[in-house]
Amino acid sequence: MNGSEYIAEFLARIGSTRVFTLTGGACAFMVDAVGRHPELTYTCFQHEQSAAMAADAVWRVSRRVGVTIATSGPGATNLITGIACSYFDSIPSIHITGQVNQREASAFHGANVRQSGFQETKIVDMVRPITKYAVMVRSGEELRQELASAYAVAMSGRKGPVLIDVPMDVQKSEVEGDVILQPERSQTSEPTKTVAASIAMTFAKSRRPVVLWGGGVGLAGVEQQVADWLARAGIPFVSSWAGLTCFDHDHPGFLGQIGVYGNRGANFVLQNADAVLVLGSRLDNRQRSGNPRNFATGATVHVIDVDEEELQKFRNDSYRTSHLDFRHLPAVLENVALPEIDAEWRKYVTEMKNRYLGRETSASARRLNSLSPYDVVRRINEVVAADAIIAGDTGAAICWLHQAFKIRRHTLFTAGGNSPMGYALPAAIGAKLAAPHRQVISYNGDGGMQLNIQELQTLKHLHLDVAVVVMNNASYGIVRQFQDSHLGSRYSASQTGYSVPDFGRIAQAYGLRNARVERIDQITPNLFTGGAIVIEVMLSEQTLIEPKLEMGRPINDQFPYLSDAEYASGNRFVDYPRPKSLKGMLT
Amino acid sequence: MNGSEYIAEFLARIGSTRVFTLTGGACAFMVDAVGRHPELTYTCFQHEQSAAMAADAVWRVSRRVGVTIATSGPGATNLITGIACSYFDSIPSIHITGQVNQREASAFHGANVRQSGFQETKIVDMVRPITKYAVMVRSGEELRQELASAYAVAMSGRKGPVLIDVPMDVQKSEVEGDVILQPERSQTSEPTKTVAASIAMTFAKSRRPVVLWGGGVGLAGVEQQVADWLARAGIPFVSSWAGLTCFDHDHPGFLGQIGVYGNRGANFVLQNADAVLVLGSRLDNRQRSGNPRNFATGATVHVIDVDEEELQKFRNDSYRTSHLDFRHLPAVLENVALPEIDAEWRKYVTEMKNRYLGRETSASARRLNSLSPYDVVRRINEVVAADAIIAGDTGAAICWLHQAFKIRRHTLFTAGGNSPMGYALPAAIGAKLAAPHRQVISYNGDGGMQLNIQELQTLKHLHLDVAVVVMNNASYGIVRQFQDSHLGSRYSASQTGYSVPDFGRIAQAYGLRNARVERIDQITPNLFTGGAIVIEVMLSEQTLIEPKLEMGRPINDQFPYLSDAEYASGNRFVDYPRPKSLKGMLT
Repeated sequence: MNGSEYIAEFLARIGSTRVFTLTGGACAFMVDAVGRHPELTYTCFQHEQSAAMAADAVWRVSRRVGVTIATSGPGATNLITGIACSYFDSIPSIHITGQVNQREASAFHGANVRQSGFQETKIVDMVRPITKYAVMVRSGEELRQELASAYAVAMSGRKGPVLIDVPMDVQKSEVEGDVILQPERSQTSEPTKTVAASIAMTFAKSRRPVVLWGGGVGLAGVEQQVADWLARAGIPFVSSWAGLTCFDHDHPGFLGQIGVYGNRGANFVLQNADAVLVLGSRLDNRQRSGNPRNFATGATVHVIDVDEEELQKFRNDSYRTSHLDFRHLPAVLENVALPEIDAEWRKYVTEMKNRYLGRETSASARRLNSLSPYDVVRRINEVVAADAIIAGDTGAAICWLHQAFKIRRHTLFTAGGNSPMGYALPAAIGAKLAAPHRQVISYNGDGGMQLNIQELQTLKHLHLDVAVVVMNNASYGIVRQFQDSHLGSRYSASQTGYSVPDFGRIAQAYGLRNARVERIDQITPNLFTGGAIVIEVMLSEQTLIEPKLEMGRPINDQFPYLSDAEYASGNRFVDYPRPKSLKGMLT
Repeated sequence: MNGSEYIAEFLARIGSTRVFTLTGGACAFMVDAVGRHPELTYTCFQHEQSAAMAADAVWRVSRRVGVTIATSGPGATNLITGIACSYFDSIPSIHITGQVNQREASAFHGANVRQSGFQETKIVDMVRPITKYAVMVRSGEELRQELASAYAVAMSGRKGPVLIDVPMDVQKSEVEGDVILQPERSQTSEPTKTVAASIAMTFAKSRRPVVLWGGGVGLAGVEQQVADWLARAGIPFVSSWAGLTCFDHDHPGFLGQIGVYGNRGANFVLQNADAVLVLGSRLDNRQRSGNPRNFATGATVHVIDVDEEELQKFRNDSYRTSHLDFRHLPAVLENVALPEIDAEWRKYVTEMKNRYLGRETSASARRLNSLSPYDVVRRINEVVAADAIIAGDTGAAICWLHQAFKIRRHTLFTAGGNSPMGYALPAAIGAKLAAPHRQVISYNGDGGMQLNIQELQTLKHLHLDVAVVVMNNASYGIVRQFQDSHLGSRYSASQTGYSVPDFGRIAQAYGLRNARVERIDQITPNLFTGGAIVIEVMLSEQTLIEPKLEMGRPINDQFPYLSDAEYASGNRFVDYPRPKSLKGMLT
């Protein structure tokens, strides 16, 4: 067995049977070995960036580890943006890059030249900030050891991507011995009883508790137990974007998602709580706003996380923290003494939910007499399968989706931390390949749709039944809205100088179906079945994200601004003085 | 003046008046400042990768420094493959990325988390292996100092790209004082007389000299003086790919380009010389082959280079080396005592030139009764302007181009060191913007054409008169040919699983003209004028690169293999024993 065949056999043993690639000279031996392995298949993408994004999506929908193989140099560097998606969102993925023969490498010559071998590039150094582990292997034996290590690292604790760089001579060298499989590395964490006692202490004096459901719950596979516990405990809960997809939104305790683009009711409740239990969320500044001191000012915040560094981050916030392997979270929660919840709080929570959840409207669209993106999302929500997979892109489009889509058994995901444009098309392809029997929707803005539009060819070639929605507001809407707030409505490069192709004609050119939606009733179930399609939804370029936080405000004071009376009604328990002006408060 | 306005003013002062961008939240202030500056304009690309490739091309055609501005996270990482093009080919370019507010950064929290601020990414660490200088600035004053330093570094010695990462708070902070412009850093190098004497020593006993013209000559702007000296000295010369574009190929001394994909005659001459003077070429392994000990075995090789590390690389090759700032090269050459050249050598050189230069044919195409890519390149050569700019992509297509295109006043370029797929379309856009009055051709294979196909929208939007040639052999031909040699003609992922869209329909969908070429006479001058067009040239997927070196052979023994008699005729002066078989010789 040579190095390439060893890699193929290793992938088969860990159940990662589908490899995403754009081939090249320095990885041809590995791709060939994959092609010859009876349990493996490869899928060709038209850009390595898409291959990496698709691999990222594989885990999100199937809990199998996505794999890419790419060639040296630009093949490897093209993976980077996709790898970053996995890193920031704690998604395990494996990236195997070809490298020049060791005796052609600059290291062999002992000279620090920019490049020695053809397309030689120091990919390991470059991806170190966005991988859990990255290594170049120098022999067949190192390949055996490092593949096992890298996979174990990817899967242990807070998960993430790994990269193995394999010189061509190692790909061809003989590898002795059977495949090494390392057990997942044991994860230190506080004992469950300690964590349970600590949470109980947070809850002890709380009468207005709320739980924040983060992405870590789903990543550990304990979402059902947590949902059940929340129902039994009767504690209201809100979610982060990453947490949003893990439970049925009809859960009686669910109030919506929080943050800059959060639901108003969820933001009010969180900001008025006296105890916030954070389960596996890193509370990034799209949740807490640019000024974290404005976040849950009346509450004891208690963050439970698998990553100790994330807990270190809160040193200056005087938050309580617990370090926990989330597989033990159900055991912890079972042992938590529950808070006594005020009746007033329950009444308020119900009021906030009824007043705000699912009621986002687009005042801008109404004013313009154009399609409301919230109506579009709700209509898509109605006509797709209850277990459909929705891969979301970024920008204004993803905000509308998260604000208005109601999850049942759907899997809705996006690369929230990295949030690259061009994610949703390759991610949907990866998702469809990993879950071929589920309905898959790729949901994009017009800006993001363009970055990996070449993958329409992949869609066509593989005969994948994926619906590609393009929310076309003919601009980078989220930047445009930012320019309204901070740059005198000068739409430099967001609308001025930016342009949009005719997506319908492009779909046809790739041999795909297309539809153009200008009225809600044109969004019908049959659009989403019967083969790949590009569905262009025509919006005004002046369509806004509503609500949306502007810089300097606490998350419970989003634009469009509520009346002082309604603001006061939402802030019934904690005082959030309202600034008269934003002057001097820009972060 | 705030930080963003300072950046705009700095760019104006250095004459980099056109900024390439895809905007985003973290760079919106900078793009806005560019938009407001009276001397600057911004150009919107549909992917940051293209913006960086286009910026790379700006220098190659205009000797002005190309600039990108991108947002944090994926905006920045999307630049990477384009930045690498500049680094490996010694092209100065400036990349300015937005970064999260410093107080939102993980460093502010003192925690080593994967990400703190939204889309926070350690881009400076990531690009360090592919930039001459990369830095995050923490204040307006640092911005002033570092912009000046970075630009000076980019332009000094062996040139290259730099990256400045600018947090949002620095973009908005007040900057005091006038724009700092640093002089180019002084470049140490050996005195011209020392180098001249050293070359004279190389030439002293030489009777069969040859000069290898590398990219460094053109990068220093001394191409005319070198060409004149070569004519006067009567020394025959060959070139590298990067050197190929700097002189008129009718120069009496020119024999062709060398290497794995070189012209046979050039390879023979180089391999039979007794002295090889290398002017600014790093002799990468596509020139010397995977086994450099097979290179110019009968010669004293003397390498002159601006980069001392490149000279270190040759320690084990017992080459002579000289370190020189190439602006002094003409002065050096004027002082070199010329070699006495054998009449036999002159006769042989002329024979090799007449026998091989410009005579590449495609035996595979003739066998298949399909279009010969060499005929296609020669026909394009005939019908385009004598000063046309040709941006080449990679793979088999670029080999055919370099083998058959005869330069007059053309500028022919590719990103030879990084050699990414998808370079030639954005590079052609950058070239056309930098040299609007010249005819510009983007020359691609079908594989490479797909990676940045979204830029057809940029072409359309800007009304750029660029002809986009696609040499469509429905496969990654260079990989396919490699698989013929080494992988039993199993075309995994190069043809099997790979597919090609209908480029003509796609061109139409973007609102561009298109043409389909199946016969040479369909390539007419008017295809290349009158607005943007996609010209698809239909080749057989079995079309080969001929000649091409296979692994293990010296560069003068390329496939298809010459008869022993012809081989011996080419190797008249130095013995290159011919292996009976390739077994065991694969590198």
